[in-house]
Amino acid sequence: MRIAVDAMGGDHAPAEVVAGAVAAARRIPNLSRLFLWGDENRLRAELKRHGAIPGSIEVRPCSEVVGMEEAPAAAVRRKRDSSISRSVDMVKAGEADAVFSAGNTGAAVAATLLKLRTLEGVDRPAIATVMPTLKAPFVLLDAGATTDCTPENLLQFALMGSIYSSKILGVEKPRVGLLSVGSEESKGNQMTKETFAHLERAPFRFIGNVEGHDLFEGRADVVVCDGFVGNVVLKTSESVAHAMKSWMREEFLRNPVRKLGAALLRGAFRSLKAKTDPDVYGGAPLLGVNGICIIGHGSARAHAIENGIRVAAEAAGLKLHERIQAEIRSLRPA
Amino acid sequence: MRIAVDAMGGDHAPAEVVAGAVAAARRIPNLSRLFLWGDENRLRAELKRHGAIPGSIEVRPCSEVVGMEEAPAAAVRRKRDSSISRSVDMVKAGEADAVFSAGNTGAAVAATLLKLRTLEGVDRPAIATVMPTLKAPFVLLDAGATTDCTPENLLQFALMGSIYSSKILGVEKPRVGLLSVGSEESKGNQMTKETFAHLERAPFRFIGNVEGHDLFEGRADVVVCDGFVGNVVLKTSESVAHAMKSWMREEFLRNPVRKLGAALLRGAFRSLKAKTDPDVYGGAPLLGVNGICIIGHGSARAHAIENGIRVAAEAAGLKLHERIQAEIRSLRPA
Repeated sequence: MRIAVDAMGGDHAPAEVVAGAVAAARRIPNLSRLFLWGDENRLRAELKRHGAIPGSIEVRPCSEVVGMEEAPAAAVRRKRDSSISRSVDMVKAGEADAVFSAGNTGAAVAATLLKLRTLEGVDRPAIATVMPTLKAPFVLLDAGATTDCTPENLLQFALMGSIYSSKILGVEKPRVGLLSVGSEESKGNQMTKETFAHLERAPFRFIGNVEGHDLFEGRADVVVCDGFVGNVVLKTSESVAHAMKSWMREEFLRNPVRKLGAALLRGAFRSLKAKTDPDVYGGAPLLGVNGICIIGHGSARAHAIENGIRVAAEAAGLKLHERIQAEIRSLRPA
Repeated sequence: MRIAVDAMGGDHAPAEVVAGAVAAARRIPNLSRLFLWGDENRLRAELKRHGAIPGSIEVRPCSEVVGMEEAPAAAVRRKRDSSISRSVDMVKAGEADAVFSAGNTGAAVAATLLKLRTLEGVDRPAIATVMPTLKAPFVLLDAGATTDCTPENLLQFALMGSIYSSKILGVEKPRVGLLSVGSEESKGNQMTKETFAHLERAPFRFIGNVEGHDLFEGRADVVVCDGFVGNVVLKTSESVAHAMKSWMREEFLRNPVRKLGAALLRGAFRSLKAKTDPDVYGGAPLLGVNGICIIGHGSARAHAIENGIRVAAEAAGLKLHERIQAEIRSLRPA
């Protein structure tokens, strides 16, 4: 697999992106090419810190970067030589099989939409984030690609989420839930109430509304919402988990007895960290576009970047976008 | 203070509501009357379990209940003799100083709106929920009263939240944040972007957008969003905290060494539970209506009901709605 990496994207770019890319090149077996787009001097300087550079890594110089604060669509149109634009260009030209970016999410979405376009039968893309629960993980979408949605958009997200859950994550007949403020059909805002009617007639297993309460109890395999709500849910979940860990740390260091107790539980905390670590997935696919784009967390460090590149290689190997397109076509009347 | 209680409202009504009311009547000093509205036989049977009934408790019989699944506004209009309708009627008639309900939130909002109306200068009400953080708690509003909002609604919520934070919680110059998907003004959906422009010109301390990440770091004293998003945030936060506790319990009981470690940390867990226990507040005020209505959690048990009644008595003592009305009036051009 050949992956184009937006090496200037992310809060800790390019240092952590380069470190993650080197680790990926060394450890991921089917990675034939890893193109790092960005400031040539800075990328080469970072590469020097990592000893022998794997032969699959190629630095590709470009002159611009889309910052985290820039208005995405305008920046992508204006900065044709930016690291995100050039990375997506490679996928469009067939020179790379997937793109990975931990930079400005809106810019990655805008560049992908502009250059690769949406799939047939899909109007807007959605970021599909895998979230851990007490039982099996679930897919939350949209986690931030399309902040203003119509009921038709949400119907398409639900369909893509169901395909992703069954074909990629291997869930049999995934349970699709609509995120709302009550389990009854009458609960919700205008948009979710209209969406409910659409989902009831859809060709997948719709289980009705799910609430915030249900999310981490494993009631649904796919949870659908607009990109504004999904992004808030994702970040709120991380915030609560972080706050609880901080509170615990503070409490556990308060006296020697507690310090001893915490020491005895070290293995449990390690296992808990592994279960709740967002870096395990490293990246979430942008579903609904005609190509593979994996979105990483802006705060990603090397380990998360490596895993994000792994997700990109896996999605490319599975030809994720082609499978979703084929499924959508099979459901449409000829 | 005289409080009217919707004794049939909540997942565990009337048993837990009656138990909480008895505890409140025994422990809250300035509670002169506690009116329990509901099925007379059931309420009297529940009261019998609690020994001597405090003299402040009065059972008020009514024949109907609004269920958790009913469409709120229609149910309130149709069921004039329901426990929530009768409770609000008492406030309207000046026979009670506040109403408390842990029942169908939509029904409590609809009954209050219909009978008490909104304050002058306020178009829609908002539930103001106090949430714990690493530092001081913050107020989240709207937590579920108004699911479809305009930018003007959010501006009014922000103003009421700021007044509540300063006048009731004692925060000096509260920092008001708009919940969105990025800290920059350009990030958000159409509604939050329009709201941002309103808030910049408003007569309180607007600190810009806040993200899910910021919520539990104590960056804002007041966080504003529509009732759909707020309800999802509230329930998602509870869900994550619950999931983490369950994961820990599972991990901590896995072997004898860990069990010992957990035993040494018992005090820490108790303190953590106290910090994250939603029952401590027990109820959230419905701001923007011309009277005092405190909304409890549907899953509330006796302890939470008791605290919710305490919040109702405090809000009544402070004449919460009158203070908010006076502040709003003082800001309007004559």
